[in-house]
Amino acid sequence: MKFKIRKAEKKDLPQILELIQELATFEKEPDAVEINVKDLEKAGFGDDAFYTCFVAETPERIEGIALVYFRFSTWKGKTVHLEDLVVRQKMRGTGIGSALYKQVIAYSLEQGVKRAEWVVLDWNTPAIEFYERSGANVLRDWDTVQMDEGAMKKFLNL
Amino acid sequence: MKFKIRKAEKKDLPQILELIQELATFEKEPDAVEINVKDLEKAGFGDDAFYTCFVAETPERIEGIALVYFRFSTWKGKTVHLEDLVVRQKMRGTGIGSALYKQVIAYSLEQGVKRAEWVVLDWNTPAIEFYERSGANVLRDWDTVQMDEGAMKKFLNL
Repeated sequence: MKFKIRKAEKKDLPQILELIQELATFEKEPDAVEINVKDLEKAGFGDDAFYTCFVAETPERIEGIALVYFRFSTWKGKTVHLEDLVVRQKMRGTGIGSALYKQVIAYSLEQGVKRAEWVVLDWNTPAIEFYERSGANVLRDWDTVQMDEGAMKKFLNL
Repeated sequence: MKFKIRKAEKKDLPQILELIQELATFEKEPDAVEINVKDLEKAGFGDDAFYTCFVAETPERIEGIALVYFRFSTWKGKTVHLEDLVVRQKMRGTGIGSALYKQVIAYSLEQGVKRAEWVVLDWNTPAIEFYERSGANVLRDWDTVQMDEGAMKKFLNL
């Protein structure tokens, strides 16, 4: 399997969005993606780029992505957050996922952070086992809380 | 109970750090705080400030904090992440926590994000009930994964 890992360019964004959609479908939320290519371009390129995306490219197309950004821990300082790591379904088991994961860890160390962090669905046993084998720690006692725009307005009586 | 909510200033940082430490102790990780006032100043003030902190102040001192920063969802775009909301133990039940929470939600709407997000320990039932009553959604099927610096170096054979 021949592929190379490199930083994403603007021209990759339509394929990156395809992979984001593929992940949402895998995570049983096919209708959750509200973002478009323009949003991705605005947030990821230019002087105030908020995220960094790595792509795994074969001669044909982009087969995998890993998208990261910085967070801030009041315990550890700056950290790297891995938002999405996706490999096209047909290309799983080819080493692309591992290579992207390795790239994210290498990037995190280069950036001098004390921690890289991400989330995993608790039924995704193969992913959990992979992360634990790699030396990561899966914390089972934290729940994610989300409030969407509608609930925020309701809460504030707007 | 007289208090006002305002944005943190540099002079508040020693008290903010006290509250961060108090939260870590409550969360049963008293030795987890590796950050100092200088780190907090570097990350939160100046042109490239990464976080925003709100404080609840009485005439005596700072009794509570809420610290937020932006994240990026590949589904929803920019989001607000609430990293810490802490009220000094003696001051719980005085309305300070609710006022800080409200400030965070108002700030999120002002910033135009589609979501505010944070995490909660699954044994912290009063907090979970409070969040759910306010209209937030507690997701119980996501686990947090963390890899620290030592594990990252080991993984890359460095």
